[in-house]
Amino acid sequence: MIKVSVLGATGYAGVELVRILTTHPEVKIEHLVSNSYAGKRFSDVYQNFTNILDIMLESLDVDTIAKDSDVVFTALPHGVAGQIVPQFIAKQVKVIDFSGDYRYKDKAVYEEWYGLEHASPHLLKDAVYGLCELNRNTIPNTDLIANPGCYTTCSILALAPAVAEKIIDFNSIIIDAKSGVTGAGRSSALDISFCECTENTKAYKVAEHRHTSEIEQELSIIANEQITLTFTPHLVPLKRGILATCYANLIDEGISAEQIMDIYKQYYKGERFIRIYPNGKLPETKFVAGSNYVDMGIKVDKRTKRLIVVCCIDNILKGAAGQAVQNMNIMFGIPEETGINNAAFYL
Amino acid sequence: MIKVSVLGATGYAGVELVRILTTHPEVKIEHLVSNSYAGKRFSDVYQNFTNILDIMLESLDVDTIAKDSDVVFTALPHGVAGQIVPQFIAKQVKVIDFSGDYRYKDKAVYEEWYGLEHASPHLLKDAVYGLCELNRNTIPNTDLIANPGCYTTCSILALAPAVAEKIIDFNSIIIDAKSGVTGAGRSSALDISFCECTENTKAYKVAEHRHTSEIEQELSIIANEQITLTFTPHLVPLKRGILATCYANLIDEGISAEQIMDIYKQYYKGERFIRIYPNGKLPETKFVAGSNYVDMGIKVDKRTKRLIVVCCIDNILKGAAGQAVQNMNIMFGIPEETGINNAAFYL
Amino acid sequence: MIKVSVLGATGYAGVELVRILTTHPEVKIEHLVSNSYAGKRFSDVYQNFTNILDIMLESLDVDTIAKDSDVVFTALPHGVAGQIVPQFIAKQVKVIDFSGDYRYKDKAVYEEWYGLEHASPHLLKDAVYGLCELNRNTIPNTDLIANPGCYTTCSILALAPAVAEKIIDFNSIIIDAKSGVTGAGRSSALDISFCECTENTKAYKVAEHRHTSEIEQELSIIANEQITLTFTPHLVPLKRGILATCYANLIDEGISAEQIMDIYKQYYKGERFIRIYPNGKLPETKFVAGSNYVDMGIKVDKRTKRLIVVCCIDNILKGAAGQAVQNMNIMFGIPEETGINNAAFYL
Amino acid sequence: MIKVSVLGATGYAGVELVRILTTHPEVKIEHLVSNSYAGKRFSDVYQNFTNILDIMLESLDVDTIAKDSDVVFTALPHGVAGQIVPQFIAKQVKVIDFSGDYRYKDKAVYEEWYGLEHASPHLLKDAVYGLCELNRNTIPNTDLIANPGCYTTCSILALAPAVAEKIIDFNSIIIDAKSGVTGAGRSSALDISFCECTENTKAYKVAEHRHTSEIEQELSIIANEQITLTFTPHLVPLKRGILATCYANLIDEGISAEQIMDIYKQYYKGERFIRIYPNGKLPETKFVAGSNYVDMGIKVDKRTKRLIVVCCIDNILKGAAGQAVQNMNIMFGIPEETGINNAAFYL
Repeated sequence: MIKVSVLGATGYAGVELVRILTTHPEVKIEHLVSNSYAGKRFSDVYQNFTNILDIMLESLDVDTIAKDSDVVFTALPHGVAGQIVPQFIAKQVKVIDFSGDYRYKDKAVYEEWYGLEHASPHLLKDAVYGLCELNRNTIPNTDLIANPGCYTTCSILALAPAVAEKIIDFNSIIIDAKSGVTGAGRSSALDISFCECTENTKAYKVAEHRHTSEIEQELSIIANEQITLTFTPHLVPLKRGILATCYANLIDEGISAEQIMDIYKQYYKGERFIRIYPNGKLPETKFVAGSNYVDMGIKVDKRTKRLIVVCCIDNILKGAAGQAVQNMNIMFGIPEETGINNAAFYL
Repeated sequence: MIKVSVLGATGYAGVELVRILTTHPEVKIEHLVSNSYAGKRFSDVYQNFTNILDIMLESLDVDTIAKDSDVVFTALPHGVAGQIVPQFIAKQVKVIDFSGDYRYKDKAVYEEWYGLEHASPHLLKDAVYGLCELNRNTIPNTDLIANPGCYTTCSILALAPAVAEKIIDFNSIIIDAKSGVTGAGRSSALDISFCECTENTKAYKVAEHRHTSEIEQELSIIANEQITLTFTPHLVPLKRGILATCYANLIDEGISAEQIMDIYKQYYKGERFIRIYPNGKLPETKFVAGSNYVDMGIKVDKRTKRLIVVCCIDNILKGAAGQAVQNMNIMFGIPEETGINNAAFYL
Repeated sequence: MIKVSVLGATGYAGVELVRILTTHPEVKIEHLVSNSYAGKRFSDVYQNFTNILDIMLESLDVDTIAKDSDVVFTALPHGVAGQIVPQFIAKQVKVIDFSGDYRYKDKAVYEEWYGLEHASPHLLKDAVYGLCELNRNTIPNTDLIANPGCYTTCSILALAPAVAEKIIDFNSIIIDAKSGVTGAGRSSALDISFCECTENTKAYKVAEHRHTSEIEQELSIIANEQITLTFTPHLVPLKRGILATCYANLIDEGISAEQIMDIYKQYYKGERFIRIYPNGKLPETKFVAGSNYVDMGIKVDKRTKRLIVVCCIDNILKGAAGQAVQNMNIMFGIPEETGINNAAFYL
Repeated sequence: MIKVSVLGATGYAGVELVRILTTHPEVKIEHLVSNSYAGKRFSDVYQNFTNILDIMLESLDVDTIAKDSDVVFTALPHGVAGQIVPQFIAKQVKVIDFSGDYRYKDKAVYEEWYGLEHASPHLLKDAVYGLCELNRNTIPNTDLIANPGCYTTCSILALAPAVAEKIIDFNSIIIDAKSGVTGAGRSSALDISFCECTENTKAYKVAEHRHTSEIEQELSIIANEQITLTFTPHLVPLKRGILATCYANLIDEGISAEQIMDIYKQYYKGERFIRIYPNGKLPETKFVAGSNYVDMGIKVDKRTKRLIVVCCIDNILKGAAGQAVQNMNIMFGIPEETGINNAAFYL
């Protein structure tokens, strides 16, 4: 059994992670840490876990947790993670970090987009960007996984094959993404209160969202040249799910949707969690919500010679907790789909 | 492995059942029958099952299904079930039926509330009412389980201990129930279209809903006298979940909430899926949605000497598909929680 | 023109009031007061008012406001209202107060249910409880209207005719009410955040909600005897609307729904905003949301000899801002429906 | 008073139109026609109109309606409108048509995108495309207004100034639009049932939606050259509202958002219903839902030299019924905002 602990267990990514871990056949939960609720039972905060996981929430005690854990999941705010994670790495404990702190190759990019000094930049070179489908080979060789962002996972996977095969003009990429409200985390901010969100749709942080830099970094690595793109996040009134509509001009104006689907299928050959839809079908967030799947539909706008890829994930599963478990499975050499193998809720 | 087939696999109760069965460790799915979609793949109708369950949907062929199945789940309209079920029983195949057709001891009660003649009343005496917590002992001894209704499961379990212990006036029972829209089934009726349902709440079939008779039958058996009660269903704008607020006058005006909680805890001692909340806490539908749990909070209105029990279930799980699997587990002698052991989604 | 000012203009009741006042043909808005947003424009806080009402929000200056206003609407927290309102009354300015502070005849009842000392109990005897349909005659004769609560308005109007005509057992009254989330006000509390509320239903403050005492006071006045009842509030995932399902045992077991409808129609004869539904039809919140209407459906449960009245209002209109304007119209002798005459949104 | 009749009064655009007309001070409603509900009262179908508009719904009688009406609103399916409208035009009755049938200059474009033969192409040359802000001068001179589509109104108004001033590359236009479910009309289709829509987001008719041709036609007229663009509609789980995120490459890479705002403000100078947001603010659908306003926020993505315009309307008001009334007001020479002057609901 893999002994795991979770820091930040009562946020939305945290509780989803715990939900998966309670049914994961190879996992034993050792410690759950919560600053806000230390001293309460997990099932006092999330009553749905009554009789299922009544474990006590703790304050952070690095020594104890490091001693008892094979791997620690850190679902902490950026900046905070950068201070805590090195303490576990120093004790040879594996860390899967949910924050943005270890996702960048270049600390200057991080510091520009996050507006703060990095607390532990020496770890950046060893950290592996845990987008499993792209970096599966290096994930087992590190102790520090930078678990990707939700918008990022969806956008990169939607565009990676087109970028790798250079079928699109890299200067023409536009990603228009729609996210559910869990993406804002468990928070009491007025703008995510029920009456402000329901029956509403908005764009936000247009041309300024941090995930832009993360998407650009990873696609640039694939392209082997610098890609700059437009990324627009939107908030739609649902809990879970991201749908990213990705646009780019096709280099070869004669290429068909079927040909592009073949490129995508080849690129993602053998990938358990990637589903390329047949021609004429498009994914919807309800086909992935509650699961670790990544669903894509491909369309060619023949009139404008544009590729349109519609891609859906569950933002707190494949976009956070599910991918974290997928990373753990790869790190520990167990079948990648263990514990995250279920179909979406649909209802 | 238990070989199972599902009739009516593409309705909402059907798809939830299939979702559970795909991850149930002791089950092999043999046939999925759908009148509407025969000839298509299950994953064509529910794209969330792509690569998970791509099995072909079939028309009904009783002989083949009976030959290949240890148990058949029939999620068919009432009236239709009454015609199909006997064909499987005649072939010694176990049946777990989701309709109202086999829930009544007295066919006259069925015919009055359902407004049609019963097609196979000879089976009523052998059918067991599959409310697992109440009839666990007789479930293994029958081939025909009448899986209870959703409102019914929630209401009966909320009141059974109070009725059994005769702490309430049986003439004073009022059940005010609020249901999510999946309770109406997968249907294209105008009144369950999105724009008619969202941002709306309504009562319907007030003092006329069929489940009234089912609740009365079962509580009367427990009371060992005839109980007549008021049951009011409401539709609230969510997908899953029923919350029943149950009212009754207390016989002993001095009894405390804590004493009643003790009665409830004693009555449901050892029950895996029943959770009695501590004093001052109340269940919410999100604490059970996606799970097989039944959550109850107990309150005494001291000013009016009334018992108020708030009870929540997921209407398509404990109220349909989850309880059906619980029944199957009991019938086949495997641990009752197998495959339905997970916590609610919460999010 | 009636010169009006609003204290607490940026809460949900406040903004709805302002929305009505901007289109009211007999009103001139003088001052809008907001503690939180003084110094900003109203349209900075509510961008939907851009170019419609760009007036500056102010801090409270009693002298200026009193001098400039014929009537002041106070949408302030209870306790605070009790301190501010007397200052306007002392200056002979009419006040329509949204808080609970002046709704009680007996300050002891207020202090018990609200848990604080009343700051200005001397005003209680002059304040009129502004439930327009019941107190229309005394409203013009006071300077201080205690605008009723939302649950209260819905519950009292649903039961008043049955109580007045003594057709029900006063010891048997149960009110099961379902409210939209605007009822919680504009707040950033975690439990009304989108992800905690959507797809959820819960009961809260069972047998303890303050509005119980207000309902009891007013129904007791009508009955001319003390009525004690059970009131259970629920939160359902919509913005606007209350649906109250009211139960009581019928004294005359032979009385029909039609006869009771006649009693209700007679009682509310000539009332512009009361709609008694024809037999077999029931109100839904979408039939009143966005309007000042009060819709009622009447049902007799013949099997249990119970009256069931289903009543719907918009909680922030007839339950707050709409009724406040109705009160103002009566106070100033203009047609009662002025400015609040529109049909519900439905969509 | 303007005597008006409505054909298709019980669809969602129809009922919104009727709602406005009941409070419009210059209008008298003569006839409401409904195929589905002829013989019932309007308030039987929409109970929110009880006591407000209890007029009887009628079958279509062209002679009577033409005789009694100054203007007829036709909210009929495309194809049907093309057969009915000419009958009123022949009788010199003004028509404001909600369908696509008279929106095209070239019947070939209509027939290609709508897949049917036009029943009355001779009327196309006299019909005026009723996008009020662009065609205000010609609206009074016609008897036939082609009321624009919802996606179309939002998209064209968002881009018109940029196209007119030629600040963008016309080959680079992408419109990513998100619509509420009322856009699908009042229908019982399974895919707009509550449980299929809520908690879901999807793209549909990607690169194939009819409104593409309408947007292209109007922007091409403004540009005085042929524009071809990408338009992607999405369905988000709310009732009302469209948010269109419009992308285009800037010709002058040095132009600032403020300069573009000035161009927009100049272009829409004096327009009552257009609101250009200040720098850094963006519209949300709740700022326009329930109103006739068109709200726009302008952003320059400096890193990619792209213009991003976010534009919101209420799809059944400015996108249908509200704009129809605006057209009527212009046709009859009364102030353009009469009856449609209110702020958005917000809540």
